[in-house]
Amino acid sequence: MANVAVLGYGTIGAGVVKVLQTNEAVITKRIGEKVEVKRILDLRDFPGDPNEDKVVHDYAVIENDPDIDVVVECMGGVNPAYKFVKAALLQGRSVATSNKELVASHGAELIAIAAEKEINFLFEASVGGGIPIIRPMISGLSADEIESVRGILNGTTNYMLTRMEEAGISFDEALREAQEKGYAELHPEADVDGYDACRKIAILTSIACEAQVDYEDIYTEGISRITTEDISYARIMKKKIKLLGSSWKEDGHVFAMVAPFLLDEDHPLSGVNDVFNAIFVHGNMVSDLMFYGKGAGSLPTASAVANDVLDCVKNKGRNIKICWDPEKVELTDCSDSVRRFFVRMTADTSDEAIGASFGQVEKVELPGLDEKAFITPAMKEADYTRTAEQLEGIINRIRLD
Amino acid sequence: MANVAVLGYGTIGAGVVKVLQTNEAVITKRIGEKVEVKRILDLRDFPGDPNEDKVVHDYAVIENDPDIDVVVECMGGVNPAYKFVKAALLQGRSVATSNKELVASHGAELIAIAAEKEINFLFEASVGGGIPIIRPMISGLSADEIESVRGILNGTTNYMLTRMEEAGISFDEALREAQEKGYAELHPEADVDGYDACRKIAILTSIACEAQVDYEDIYTEGISRITTEDISYARIMKKKIKLLGSSWKEDGHVFAMVAPFLLDEDHPLSGVNDVFNAIFVHGNMVSDLMFYGKGAGSLPTASAVANDVLDCVKNKGRNIKICWDPEKVELTDCSDSVRRFFVRMTADTSDEAIGASFGQVEKVELPGLDEKAFITPAMKEADYTRTAEQLEGIINRIRLD
Repeated sequence: MANVAVLGYGTIGAGVVKVLQTNEAVITKRIGEKVEVKRILDLRDFPGDPNEDKVVHDYAVIENDPDIDVVVECMGGVNPAYKFVKAALLQGRSVATSNKELVASHGAELIAIAAEKEINFLFEASVGGGIPIIRPMISGLSADEIESVRGILNGTTNYMLTRMEEAGISFDEALREAQEKGYAELHPEADVDGYDACRKIAILTSIACEAQVDYEDIYTEGISRITTEDISYARIMKKKIKLLGSSWKEDGHVFAMVAPFLLDEDHPLSGVNDVFNAIFVHGNMVSDLMFYGKGAGSLPTASAVANDVLDCVKNKGRNIKICWDPEKVELTDCSDSVRRFFVRMTADTSDEAIGASFGQVEKVELPGLDEKAFITPAMKEADYTRTAEQLEGIINRIRLD
Repeated sequence: MANVAVLGYGTIGAGVVKVLQTNEAVITKRIGEKVEVKRILDLRDFPGDPNEDKVVHDYAVIENDPDIDVVVECMGGVNPAYKFVKAALLQGRSVATSNKELVASHGAELIAIAAEKEINFLFEASVGGGIPIIRPMISGLSADEIESVRGILNGTTNYMLTRMEEAGISFDEALREAQEKGYAELHPEADVDGYDACRKIAILTSIACEAQVDYEDIYTEGISRITTEDISYARIMKKKIKLLGSSWKEDGHVFAMVAPFLLDEDHPLSGVNDVFNAIFVHGNMVSDLMFYGKGAGSLPTASAVANDVLDCVKNKGRNIKICWDPEKVELTDCSDSVRRFFVRMTADTSDEAIGASFGQVEKVELPGLDEKAFITPAMKEADYTRTAEQLEGIINRIRLD
C-alpha cells in the first residue's frame, strides 16, 4: 500500500482525493497496490466531509508520519508550498503538484533534488489542467527537437473571449459573467493580465529548452484592451482573437511572449472555446501536434495530479529523468521578432500618413464604424513600436499569428 | 551505447534511421548514451544510401548479432513481422513497432512476453502516426476510467473528405488526387473501406478496456458511398462528414464501430483536415481530451517509433506495464446503439410514409435537388435498419454524432 498526504483541501486537493477514492478499484488493479489518502493538510476543518478525520492543521504531523510515501501539493502560491515540498523531497518522498508558481520559480531546483534522491517531482497539472502535456513533452518527444510551443493556457480569458465573440458582450460584461460562474477571481488580474499564462509558458519553454526560463523575462500582455469592435473586426477578417502563450526558437535565439493574437479561423487553436485549453507543439521531426482538454476545473486537474501520484508509486526508487537545467536561458527580446499587426486608427488619419509609416497595408472595413483599420506588412516589433510612437490616433493594435 | 536493428527500410523505417541520425546529439544528451542504427533488414539493396553498408537481407544476421539491443519493426503486415518480433522478444530484446496489423492481431501476446522477459514491446506509431496517444492512454490516464475513444484515424480518407468539401470534387476525383499525392494506394480498399481505421480503433479500445478487442468484431463502413450531394447537405446542416473510429462503454457494454459520421461544425474533430488525425478520449475524471497531429508521413511516424526506441533504452531491464489482457472483450452489437440518422430518399416518397416510418423528422432541403432529406429522431440502429428495409427509395443515410 502507498500512503498519500494532500496539502491543501481546496478545489484541486479535494478533487485529487475524490479521483483516488472514486477510481480506487481500477487504480489498485493497474498499480498492483492500494493508494490511500492518509492525511490532508488544511487550516480549515471540514465537519461532515467523509475525509474530515484525515485533516490536520500542522505540516509537522505529515512530516513526522513515517507512513507517507507521496506528498500532493495543491496549495498554490510559492510560500509555504516551496518550503513543504522541498522538505518532503529532502526526506525522500516523491511529490506531485499542480502549482504553476512553484514550478515556474523553483522547478529546476526541485527536479534536481528528486533526481539526486532517486524519487520524483512531477507537475503535469501545473499547465493545461487535465491535459497531458508535460509528460508527452518530457517522455513522448525525446527523439525531437521542440522548436515551438504555443497555446491557449488560461481558461478564464478564453471563456471571456469566447463569450465576447458569441454573445457580442463587452470585456466588462464577460468578466462579470466569468466571475459569476466562478471562472474568474474577484481580483482577476492574474488571469486577464496574462500572468497565469506567463507562468505556464515559462514552464513549457523551460522543458522545450531543457533549462530555466524565468517568467519575469517574458513579455506579457493581457486581454483587457480587447473590445467588442476588435471582435467584430476579427469576424470580418475570418479570424479569432485568442490569448496565446508562445515561445519559439529561431537561429539559436529563444523568444517567448504572452499576448492576444489574431488567428485564422481554420487554425486548430481557433476552435478552442470556453474554458478549454490547447497547446500546439512543433517538433523538428514530428511536425505539429496539438493537445486539447479542460484547462481548469476540479476533477480534470485532479486527474492529472492523481496520475502523477500513481507514477510516483509505480516508479518507487527510480527517478523519471526530466531535463531542466538550473542554467538560465537568456531570452531574446521580442522586439526583434517579425510579424504583421492589425491596427485601428482614428478617422482623421490620412491614407498617405498610413502608407508613409507602414508601407503597403491591407485595409479592413467595419461597416458603421468611422475609423481607419488595416493590417501592416510583416515588420519587426521594434519597428512597429517606433512607427506607432510617431503617429497620433492609434486606437488599438493586435498581433497576427 | 545502444544498438538498434531496423526491420524494413521503407517510408517509416528510413524515417526512423533519419530521426535517430539527425537528432543524434540531442538524443545522446537526453538518454545519456549513444543510440546507433547497426543493421537494417530489407530485401532490396540501397546503393548510394549513406546507410547502405548496414543493409542485410537475412533476419538471421540480426538474430545472431549479439550487439543488438532494440529491434524496430516497420515492415507492416502480420507475416513475417510477427515471427521476427516474437523471436526478438523471446531473445530478450525490446521491440518498437509501427505495425497496426501486428499489434491489433498479436498485441496481447507480445505485451505478455515483454512483461515476462522484463523488456518492452512499444507501439506508439501504430495509431495516429506521430501523435502521442498510446503512451498518454497507458501512462497518462491511469487515474481515469476511459469511457470513450473516437477519432479520425485514417489520413487518406480524411484528405479525401476534406478535398470533396473544399473543392467540391467527387469521391473518384478525390481518390485520384490522393493517389497522385501518394496518400492512397493503387488498391485503396484498406483506407477507403475503413479497414485501416478498424485496426486502429481495435488497438485503442483494447487499451481502454485493458483486454483484447478483435478487429474482426468491429462493424466497419468506409466512405465510398459518400457523394458530393452528401457533402452539400452537410454544409447546409452546418456539419462535417468525418470517418470516425469510435468505441464507448455504456452500462457495462462495450461498443465499437468505424463509419462516416456527421459532426457539428464546432466540434473539435470537425476542424481536423487533410491528412491530419485526431483522437478524442473521454475519461470519467478528466472529461474530454483531444490529441491532434500528423497521422501519417515518414518523419512524424518515425518520430513516434524513435521515441519508443529511446524509451526501450531508458528502461533497460524494466518493463513498462501495459494493461492488455489476452482475455477477449465481447463487443455488444452496434444495432443496440441509439442515435439520429440523416436520410435521403427519392422525391416520390410521401411525407406521410416518412412520418409513419420515422416519426417526427427534421427536414433538410438542398436547393436544386429534387429529393426528400431529413434527420430522424434518436433511434436504435436495429430499428432504423428494419424500418429502412421496409421502405423503397432510400438514396443514402449517414449517422449523426
